[in-house]
Amino acid sequence: MNSSKSKLPLYLKVAQGLEGQIQHGAFRLGDPIPSIRDLSRQQGVSISTVLQAYFWLENRGWIEARPKSGFYVKQQAQNLSPEPAYRPSEPRPKAISIGDLVVEVLRTCGRPVKFPLGAACPSPDRMPNRALNTIIRRISRRNPAHSTNYDVPPGIPALCRQIAKRSVEHGCNFSPRDLIITCGALEALNLCLRTIGKSGDVIVTESPTYFGVLQAIDSLGMKAIEIPTHCRTGVNLELLEESIKKHRVRAYITMTNCQNPLGYILTDDKKRALVDLLARHEIPLIEDDVYGDLAFDTNRPRTAKSFDRQELVMLCGSFSKTIAPGLRIGWVQGGRYHAGIERLKLLTNLASPSLLQLAIAEFMESGGYDRHVRNLRVAFEQQVQMVSQAVAKYFPEGTCVSRPAGGYVLWVELPKNTDSVSVYRAALAEGITISPGPIFSPSGKFRNYIRLNCGRTWSEELDRALLKLGRLCESR
Amino acid sequence: MNSSKSKLPLYLKVAQGLEGQIQHGAFRLGDPIPSIRDLSRQQGVSISTVLQAYFWLENRGWIEARPKSGFYVKQQAQNLSPEPAYRPSEPRPKAISIGDLVVEVLRTCGRPVKFPLGAACPSPDRMPNRALNTIIRRISRRNPAHSTNYDVPPGIPALCRQIAKRSVEHGCNFSPRDLIITCGALEALNLCLRTIGKSGDVIVTESPTYFGVLQAIDSLGMKAIEIPTHCRTGVNLELLEESIKKHRVRAYITMTNCQNPLGYILTDDKKRALVDLLARHEIPLIEDDVYGDLAFDTNRPRTAKSFDRQELVMLCGSFSKTIAPGLRIGWVQGGRYHAGIERLKLLTNLASPSLLQLAIAEFMESGGYDRHVRNLRVAFEQQVQMVSQAVAKYFPEGTCVSRPAGGYVLWVELPKNTDSVSVYRAALAEGITISPGPIFSPSGKFRNYIRLNCGRTWSEELDRALLKLGRLCESR
Repeated sequence: MNSSKSKLPLYLKVAQGLEGQIQHGAFRLGDPIPSIRDLSRQQGVSISTVLQAYFWLENRGWIEARPKSGFYVKQQAQNLSPEPAYRPSEPRPKAISIGDLVVEVLRTCGRPVKFPLGAACPSPDRMPNRALNTIIRRISRRNPAHSTNYDVPPGIPALCRQIAKRSVEHGCNFSPRDLIITCGALEALNLCLRTIGKSGDVIVTESPTYFGVLQAIDSLGMKAIEIPTHCRTGVNLELLEESIKKHRVRAYITMTNCQNPLGYILTDDKKRALVDLLARHEIPLIEDDVYGDLAFDTNRPRTAKSFDRQELVMLCGSFSKTIAPGLRIGWVQGGRYHAGIERLKLLTNLASPSLLQLAIAEFMESGGYDRHVRNLRVAFEQQVQMVSQAVAKYFPEGTCVSRPAGGYVLWVELPKNTDSVSVYRAALAEGITISPGPIFSPSGKFRNYIRLNCGRTWSEELDRALLKLGRLCESR
Repeated sequence: MNSSKSKLPLYLKVAQGLEGQIQHGAFRLGDPIPSIRDLSRQQGVSISTVLQAYFWLENRGWIEARPKSGFYVKQQAQNLSPEPAYRPSEPRPKAISIGDLVVEVLRTCGRPVKFPLGAACPSPDRMPNRALNTIIRRISRRNPAHSTNYDVPPGIPALCRQIAKRSVEHGCNFSPRDLIITCGALEALNLCLRTIGKSGDVIVTESPTYFGVLQAIDSLGMKAIEIPTHCRTGVNLELLEESIKKHRVRAYITMTNCQNPLGYILTDDKKRALVDLLARHEIPLIEDDVYGDLAFDTNRPRTAKSFDRQELVMLCGSFSKTIAPGLRIGWVQGGRYHAGIERLKLLTNLASPSLLQLAIAEFMESGGYDRHVRNLRVAFEQQVQMVSQAVAKYFPEGTCVSRPAGGYVLWVELPKNTDSVSVYRAALAEGITISPGPIFSPSGKFRNYIRLNCGRTWSEELDRALLKLGRLCESR
């Protein structure tokens, strides 16, 4: 072994030395490794030797380059649990049957628990609290009468301007007057559903999909068809078209970027194909893009809306996932349904809170939002990878885990007979919340699945909590 | 005349002297008149003579005593236009037909006009901005992570506690856990309607009534029966019971205190009778009490809820009329419908904004809210009287005006052939907004009525605007 090693080219010696350090935990997932210049000096080798070594490590998937930032230890695919399998089933309209469980789960969001892995919510230290509070104080001094009016829809013009300006990043070109400010994206989704549909209507969703959407559909007396959805490539378009042909579908509601809970980003081609397919059948698309700014890739992914030529797409966004959930500020670009949505917003709660709209507008205008989101993406990618590794280490054999392309949730398939609702209740008793799989399906599928929030900053304590959670999964 | 005056008792001389000063404008409406001690010294008469004089003036309606504050010049009933007449008509379920006009009117709320007499909105100088901003800054420093959670329903416990504590003032005895925090009272009303009813259901309302309620009813596909309502004594209970017997009524929605737009406060006896009547028929009552804290009388009026023994009353309140409309914080005590309302709130927009809930809770806890509301009541009573007088002076002959017992809106009946929508549009062009009568009725009644917002602090400019408005009414 020694003799073979001595024959190795110099760069490979350097590379394998680092590989060993990573394998034995000297450098951990997400850690920076030494800069090229530093390593060259430390090991007395040339810059080009270090570069060759780093290319070798990059090719082997050990490290990754981040623009203007250097090299970092990367997730090793072979260390992870496999991905959940795609299991198609026949799509049929169904009344939503899991309301009580959702309410039970959502209520625990309000409870302070030690490890909140249930709600998709970052830890407070990931949020731009300092900048936001500085802005709020500034507004309170400069404009003390900030809240003495009803800022009726569309909403505060400065915020509409900022959202419109940013829309170029996802391939759109909004005018501020196309937008309506809402109390969070869930309100926007509700307003879209109410504008285009009525009780008895059939709405098509992904499967699994965000439970808030399913409950909104249910509370409006509508029915859902769940289309089998692949955890990397998204919804099956053939099955979607079949369903459209077979049933009287009123709308399709979807997340195209960093889908909750699967984490995939639809390719541009698939987004275009989806928009075209729906346009052919004149079916409105409600696009929920709350995680769009959190794609791990440095390029902000496009929205399906950016391919919309018929004004059939209603695009909903929010600042709950990036700035702070408790602000309750979201927005919608309603396409041809704009006037109806605006009217319903007016009749639902007149206006959204003024101070918080002003604060977000100022945060965006200052460039603070862009900087913050850039940091968030890196942090969340690392957190998702840490939790993925912990699941691989601590969860029962046969566990599968998603490979999100953005956002901060993981979709975990537990061994076949595991009852995730029982895991949920047992975990709650230990101060850990999770989201049980059945709430992500209108018909309560995904009994042996859970969703984990990876928004919490990594810590030894969290590692131990995941160990405990893994053990709880064994026995249910 | 001189000789007869010389025979007058001393107190009457003093009194008539003051009467003359008031009549000729030396003391104006709402002005304090000299204290008893001061006048006694100034005129060299005894304290008891001044007291007698003030009693005489009080009996004649010229002045009024305010507790711990002295005597003030009071509105003279004989100087005012008569009250609008009560015109009963047969109550029948109707689809709501005035949506476009309401949206047109509500949109102008967002526009900055010089004289906003349309939306029921106080001027910024009447709002406790300084105290509120101080609290907001304090929270931003002490609790910088204030918005990093979804504060799911019921809402922030500190605010629920304060609202529960205050409920004794209107005869109730809420527990904090009976309450749900909403984004304004209109959201609360919507949640109540959605919880108890569905598309096609019939809801009974006053006539005239708050247009937001009518539009909410319409947006949910429900129908309204408008019950003729007297501008002092409120809804006609016999007609209400007849309607209940004749039609399948799903709920009655009402303002029992400082009704918008009429301004009456139902007597306790009538509130009790109303609650009993509805209980006999098992019909839920949705009570909108947003103006309850603004009754001119120093005693806070009771709510109908305080007579509710069947948990059939849903009581809705807000801070939009007293602290700031742009905060969008309201609440509901849902009685037996609590769980359903809580669930719908969760599915509509998950939570209400955290920072603003915390700020209001702190304002209430500090005693600031009570002090503020005490001052507001006095200020609004005076403002309502000033506008009433201006209407009497400047509006066409035959104009009638309501006598509100609280709040800050006036209901003005213009001469029979006046078209208030045309007045609305002409006034808007002059920088004055008003609310045209038809939006207060499901069937567009009250064509020759307008509602005036008296929340603006009185000024010479406002006086001139009312002169202009009066002239606009002549020609339409």
